[in-house]
Amino acid sequence: MHSGPDFNDIRAASGRIAAQIHRTPVLTSELLDKIAGARLFFKCENFQKTGSFKIRGATNAVLSLPEESASRGVVTHSSGNHAAALARAAQLRGIPAWIVMPSNAPAVKRAAVEAYGGTITFCEPTLAARESTAQDLLQKTGAQMIHPYDNRNVIAGQGTAALELLNEVADLDFILAPVSGGGLLSGTAIAAKAMNPKIRVIGCEPKNADDAFRSMASGQLEPAAKSDTIADGLRATLCPLTFSILRDCVDQVVTVTEDEIGNAMRTIWERMKIVIEPSAAVAAAPALLRRIGADGGRVGIILSGGNVDLSQLPF
Amino acid sequence: MHSGPDFNDIRAASGRIAAQIHRTPVLTSELLDKIAGARLFFKCENFQKTGSFKIRGATNAVLSLPEESASRGVVTHSSGNHAAALARAAQLRGIPAWIVMPSNAPAVKRAAVEAYGGTITFCEPTLAARESTAQDLLQKTGAQMIHPYDNRNVIAGQGTAALELLNEVADLDFILAPVSGGGLLSGTAIAAKAMNPKIRVIGCEPKNADDAFRSMASGQLEPAAKSDTIADGLRATLCPLTFSILRDCVDQVVTVTEDEIGNAMRTIWERMKIVIEPSAAVAAAPALLRRIGADGGRVGIILSGGNVDLSQLPF
Repeated sequence: MHSGPDFNDIRAASGRIAAQIHRTPVLTSELLDKIAGARLFFKCENFQKTGSFKIRGATNAVLSLPEESASRGVVTHSSGNHAAALARAAQLRGIPAWIVMPSNAPAVKRAAVEAYGGTITFCEPTLAARESTAQDLLQKTGAQMIHPYDNRNVIAGQGTAALELLNEVADLDFILAPVSGGGLLSGTAIAAKAMNPKIRVIGCEPKNADDAFRSMASGQLEPAAKSDTIADGLRATLCPLTFSILRDCVDQVVTVTEDEIGNAMRTIWERMKIVIEPSAAVAAAPALLRRIGADGGRVGIILSGGNVDLSQLPF
Repeated sequence: MHSGPDFNDIRAASGRIAAQIHRTPVLTSELLDKIAGARLFFKCENFQKTGSFKIRGATNAVLSLPEESASRGVVTHSSGNHAAALARAAQLRGIPAWIVMPSNAPAVKRAAVEAYGGTITFCEPTLAARESTAQDLLQKTGAQMIHPYDNRNVIAGQGTAALELLNEVADLDFILAPVSGGGLLSGTAIAAKAMNPKIRVIGCEPKNADDAFRSMASGQLEPAAKSDTIADGLRATLCPLTFSILRDCVDQVVTVTEDEIGNAMRTIWERMKIVIEPSAAVAAAPALLRRIGADGGRVGIILSGGNVDLSQLPF
């Protein structure tokens, strides 16, 4: 049995964070249903505060800190959506947030962290430099590390998106979420299996960053071989905690190519008139490609975020 | 006094078309409010059936035809959103639709008309060829011409978007809509002034296709000088009917440059995570640029549609 949060933790997280996040809409599209040969229910975390689901886990983690330790602030290293999410969660609690970012992080990501009052420390763009810089900050400040996914409160927070989706749409046969470090997929799987044991939980991963797929196949944590994917939110790798949850609660991990990601993204933009990021398209692609055996079924899809660099589109 | 529809016609249209269209959402954005220095309420016709407000007018016109004349079908010439809208409206009534399109119309526009069962007749890409081809069809078939804006029932249908917006959001100080042939702006103005005589109705037009701006300034119908704008839905010119309505009910026409259109479009995609077409951005730009004197006020904006060629973005 995994050592992650349980469904009660996710329910508690949902109540804890409710006032600080959007309850995002669930959208449907007859046109996309025809393409997929199934009924699709899109949980639109692209409309979420800070533009992604990451605010759920970050907010739950920050609000779960006891007062004394919270007052010393929080630290993370991230160049992406978790950085802005943690900065905002800390700002709303009135505590400092130190964010370690690689020196080559895009200006728009830096601006988002700064807009939420986060203090950025730049470092060399290597994992080693990020971790040692974060360690320095932790020792100097006495702050708490809030890891983007190797954290039970973060995972519980991410699970609240699936909780909302399943409360709103009954009788889903499938639920699909992207997988990178595995925080969102872990929370999704714990919530979904508790609410509906028959549901099939599917992780969706770029073929070009397929460590979760390979780890599930081999039964042991496989290292990343490469991560050159357009899905910039999906370049991290599982940790022992998230891997143990995936093994217990996830039925399958499917991979999609870069072209399939770009095509799914374009189809959703054109047909649904919503902006989703490539990582979100990764979760939609297997359904649109009829690759999960969902013919005639009801499929929930977590559209994880909408933060896209419009100057670098794949079409 | 103009000879267009009155508010009762718009209310009747709203009931007539309700079962065949979406009641589109009104979205807000704190970030965009800060940019505009005002509270903005976006009526999202980009989520409308066929991807634009045009389905409102086309559906009202088709459903208003008496049975005998309806059975002979409808004709229009259009290369854009009205073509698909009329084809769908006719399909739902079970009558034929003949659509005259220029031979260089984009494949995606042709596909949309065909998907709704419309019969396309291609012609040379000139206004003269379009009109004569439509005339031939009318004589051959005995069908009814449904002009995209020079038609009272079409104008009444377009006014239902503003009716819904004002029913949902009270006390708007301004309402903004794009202007091209003037059907949407006319319907918007008639509805808005009837529901709230103090509201300021502003038409928004590309500087590169500014016949409405010049006509309002000179007091007579001015011909188009040019129409080389990215806002492909706004290249038509006013007709005497829509001009008479604008003179009676529209307070101001403001123009925006091509750069301003592209910037507004990008801002809305990035911040609101929704896909809007350039013509819709034309109506948002004056508010985002603080060019209408709305400081601290409440501003309704009709986002007219979301049909964009993603291969030809201005950014």
